[in-house]
Amino acid sequence: MATRPSSATIATIASEVGVSAATVSKVLNGRSDVAPETRARVEASLERHSYRPRSRRQPVRNELELVFSRFDTVWAMEIIRGVEAEAATAEVNVVLSQLGGAYRPSQPWLTGVLTRRPLGVLLVMCHLAETQRQRLQRQQIPFVVIDTDSATSAAVPTVGSNNWNGGLLATRHLLELGHRRIAVISGPENVLCSQDRVAGFRSAHEQAGVPVDPELVQYGAFAAHSGYEHAMRLLAGPNRPTAIFAGADIQAMGVLRAARQHGLEVPRDLSVVGYDNLPLSAWTGPALTTVDQPLRDMAGTATRMLLDLARGSELLASRVDLVTELVVRESTAPPRHPPLGAATS
Amino acid sequence: MATRPSSATIATIASEVGVSAATVSKVLNGRSDVAPETRARVEASLERHSYRPRSRRQPVRNELELVFSRFDTVWAMEIIRGVEAEAATAEVNVVLSQLGGAYRPSQPWLTGVLTRRPLGVLLVMCHLAETQRQRLQRQQIPFVVIDTDSATSAAVPTVGSNNWNGGLLATRHLLELGHRRIAVISGPENVLCSQDRVAGFRSAHEQAGVPVDPELVQYGAFAAHSGYEHAMRLLAGPNRPTAIFAGADIQAMGVLRAARQHGLEVPRDLSVVGYDNLPLSAWTGPALTTVDQPLRDMAGTATRMLLDLARGSELLASRVDLVTELVVRESTAPPRHPPLGAATS
Repeated sequence: MATRPSSATIATIASEVGVSAATVSKVLNGRSDVAPETRARVEASLERHSYRPRSRRQPVRNELELVFSRFDTVWAMEIIRGVEAEAATAEVNVVLSQLGGAYRPSQPWLTGVLTRRPLGVLLVMCHLAETQRQRLQRQQIPFVVIDTDSATSAAVPTVGSNNWNGGLLATRHLLELGHRRIAVISGPENVLCSQDRVAGFRSAHEQAGVPVDPELVQYGAFAAHSGYEHAMRLLAGPNRPTAIFAGADIQAMGVLRAARQHGLEVPRDLSVVGYDNLPLSAWTGPALTTVDQPLRDMAGTATRMLLDLARGSELLASRVDLVTELVVRESTAPPRHPPLGAATS
Repeated sequence: MATRPSSATIATIASEVGVSAATVSKVLNGRSDVAPETRARVEASLERHSYRPRSRRQPVRNELELVFSRFDTVWAMEIIRGVEAEAATAEVNVVLSQLGGAYRPSQPWLTGVLTRRPLGVLLVMCHLAETQRQRLQRQQIPFVVIDTDSATSAAVPTVGSNNWNGGLLATRHLLELGHRRIAVISGPENVLCSQDRVAGFRSAHEQAGVPVDPELVQYGAFAAHSGYEHAMRLLAGPNRPTAIFAGADIQAMGVLRAARQHGLEVPRDLSVVGYDNLPLSAWTGPALTTVDQPLRDMAGTATRMLLDLARGSELLASRVDLVTELVVRESTAPPRHPPLGAATS
């Protein structure tokens, strides 16, 4: 995000591309009344010349924009709290928006940001297209992504957490208690954090020399009903798992409900591990053993990174993964009837 | 909120008070570098003349400000979702802030709002001082309060819900099931919504001809641990209640935990009713019978009122109370041993 102005001026760019200076300005200001083909040629020229505006056209607002793909969970609340606490300390306002479930901000959203000129943009579980990134960078509007997805480009400052480690810790805990048939209900299969947690689940099994039954590996949505539906199916069979590792605390609440409906007592008949360590996980019946994903700290770290960038500082690292830890409460115990001959790890 | 400009100008006010026009402007713009005594005299004169600025000095931002006393609960998330949905439809941004637990915005906050010039301000469970209200009105910045508190002034547009009715419905349901020793764990005693719910609780008893044991009326915090602590005490005695009506779903989660620790099964040994009908209340063990407080609708209604005011419309009513309803799930049942001779209502 270092800003090294080149010697190119708007006039240079305009004459190279063969358009008016006004058209170059429109592209720079994110206006929508430029033909896409012209815009692409102007942007390519701006890029070739590493063009940076000499000075900001308008005063920067003392605001940061916090953008969610969608906020409809307690999970999002933790992120908002973490951002707000850090922003309040810096006396910066937080503008909240959500993309209605989309994972990529729309063009009108981008135009709005370029007009509003916030200090910076925090994106939660959503990503900028390459051209959107370039336009923010050209206007010196920094951005940071809060994501549990590990595949973000090195060019995008990102704060996440170690999902693989989370999956490993949860599963190792269950293996150490003596469980040998452990199911995992992860998030959506196309989301990398879900895959990472399952990879950690597999690694723990490998380390303990316990094979994974492919039928016990399930992908679902990060929602209570998804945990419930998967668990209802998993617990219906004759060879049911003795433990379920859920991809989110709210999923785990669905698993607890399925266990009750099957007449199973947790943890006597079934161990359950959640993920996130939301405040409510201490109050479920029984209180959840869960993986602490430090959402508030992740949000606070991302906010500090963004404010540093807005002040012109260079970041020490473009990707920060906070550590995940296991919190043992009441929902896990040794299996009631450990399978004969099962090795303890 | 109607704006009827008087004939007074800044010069009129300045000469009446005996200060410079610049000082009057400072007061109008919410600047802090005016002596309190001078400010008070200028504001009194502005008020006498019903002074309204001829035109807005700066363009109004396409933003509304959403202010919480504190947001740290799932309850607040529901409000944010309701506001955001309505604001997104109107293509208005939402600026989020919280007062760190205070119930009255600070002077720097007010100065910030007067500088930023949002479309309007939504206050959740917090209130403007009379002078703060006047300053916003003078700058034509409308405001609406979202509150469960019934004692707001008629001059302040407010959206709430019918707490008395909520308390009545919850208690009547328990009485009709045959309960005669019903405890209530309400919110803080100095908050009117807590008192209203208890008043509804008492009315239901009166209507059924069942006396209320004063020891069974408890006030606490709207938090899980508060429900837990009160219920632990209530359930410890020999003459324990057969039902508990909690003032919030998260309090009810604490009550469920206390019941488990006392070895009581819900609803067989104890009926529990929550309040709010948060999404999680369908996933507790057992699923909560609760009073639906339509938080998202309340927030959406308040947002629409605010946007109407910002467009210069008059409101039909300055106070709107949305209706509360009982949602019966699994946490309530007839008492195991109904007291002999108890009349059914």
